[in-house]
Amino acid sequence: MLMRVVAGPDEGAPNFAMRIFEIQPQSSTPYHSHAWEHEVFVISGQGAVTGAEGQKQLGEGDAIFVASNEQHCFANTGDGLLRLVCVVPLISGRLPGSPS
Amino acid sequence: MLMRVVAGPDEGAPNFAMRIFEIQPQSSTPYHSHAWEHEVFVISGQGAVTGAEGQKQLGEGDAIFVASNEQHCFANTGDGLLRLVCVVPLISGRLPGSPS
Repeated sequence: MLMRVVAGPDEGAPNFAMRIFEIQPQSSTPYHSHAWEHEVFVISGQGAVTGAEGQKQLGEGDAIFVASNEQHCFANTGDGLLRLVCVVPLISGRLPGSPS
Repeated sequence: MLMRVVAGPDEGAPNFAMRIFEIQPQSSTPYHSHAWEHEVFVISGQGAVTGAEGQKQLGEGDAIFVASNEQHCFANTGDGLLRLVCVVPLISGRLPGSPS
């Protein structure tokens, strides 16, 4: 999996950061939760999101809101890359989960 | 131009909203500024962004940070739709610019 921050503190972003994820076929993000939300847009590929409401299929153009503290994972169920835009809030001006 | 909120207050978003813009060929958003930032990702199409640093060409996969109070506009310079993800902060829990 590849993650790239395309707008964040380094660009002067004050409130939230935009990251691009590329998930390889048959791969998945860990099933986990954290104290911040995600707003996700599917750029390309086929996948599935698992969250509090169960599993949903994903394709290009779909958008997903993952609430803070909601268990979730994103899986690539297709043959090509699954590419996502994933936006997270900044916490004290930093990317969440980064060393303080 | 078409704008669609895909993650915002109606979905329970607490901090920022994700919108999708579709700009027709040879069309542009107004050249304007406002007191909130944009984080933008180009889903598809060809265009140009004009901001404080001048004009830059845009294509699929590009990301743009527009600072609060920066004059800016997005133009479609191609033959197909210019499709953008554009994220804005919520202000008092509402979409910026919406009636209070």
